[in-house]
Amino acid sequence: MNKIEHIGIAVKNLEAGNSLYEKLLGVPHYKIEEVASEGVRTSFFKTGPNKIELLEATNDDSAIAKFIEKKGEGIHHIAFAVENIVEEMERLKKEGFIILNEKPKKGADNKLVAFIHPKTAGGVLIELCQEINN
Amino acid sequence: MNKIEHIGIAVKNLEAGNSLYEKLLGVPHYKIEEVASEGVRTSFFKTGPNKIELLEATNDDSAIAKFIEKKGEGIHHIAFAVENIVEEMERLKKEGFIILNEKPKKGADNKLVAFIHPKTAGGVLIELCQEINN
Repeated sequence: MNKIEHIGIAVKNLEAGNSLYEKLLGVPHYKIEEVASEGVRTSFFKTGPNKIELLEATNDDSAIAKFIEKKGEGIHHIAFAVENIVEEMERLKKEGFIILNEKPKKGADNKLVAFIHPKTAGGVLIELCQEINN
Repeated sequence: MNKIEHIGIAVKNLEAGNSLYEKLLGVPHYKIEEVASEGVRTSFFKTGPNKIELLEATNDDSAIAKFIEKKGEGIHHIAFAVENIVEEMERLKKEGFIILNEKPKKGADNKLVAFIHPKTAGGVLIELCQEINN
């Protein structure tokens, strides 16, 4: 795996989150994007070579709504950039990690993504993401 | 703030953690360092421009022991690289963030560090860290 592409942080309200993280990081968010299939609205901040992604649930069945109900606002996942997501999924499966999706799916920010089950990764929800070349 | 310097992850056992994260990240850890004042033993992995820091408690009073007791293994903090930690602490105080230490303290990996209270930072424990120039 390469750099940390982003850290995903669950927030109750995206506007309040944007205001807070703008003060914290000292830069404004540079885009807002809804991923309807995941039931989330996201915003992105650049921190050098990395990004912070805020995640707000758009419905009660969203994984983010459930996360906040159980654990409150906070860090939801770490995403690592990979060059070939299919190869990386295969490598990790062979190492004993459980991949939550059979095939990569379209995520926010023009990426193909896949998630590793936190039970097999030390309690951390890991996302793999590969840039989609248009 | 600049790049994500590292993500700190609480583990019950550093050797088991090293073995797991070596498989996950595809690289071995490059050092182990004890920070006696914090009651932790740490190991570091490089992921491009960023690092993953595993944290094992060395006594029951360690913040890491309490974290694992309460929440289990998982992400403990995000550390951002800053150029001037004292200036950044002042800026954040003015923005309403509570800084957990009055002055920067010596952390692992040759850094001056300070922490922001998660209650003022959307449930996320944020570390500021400045490289010490010897």
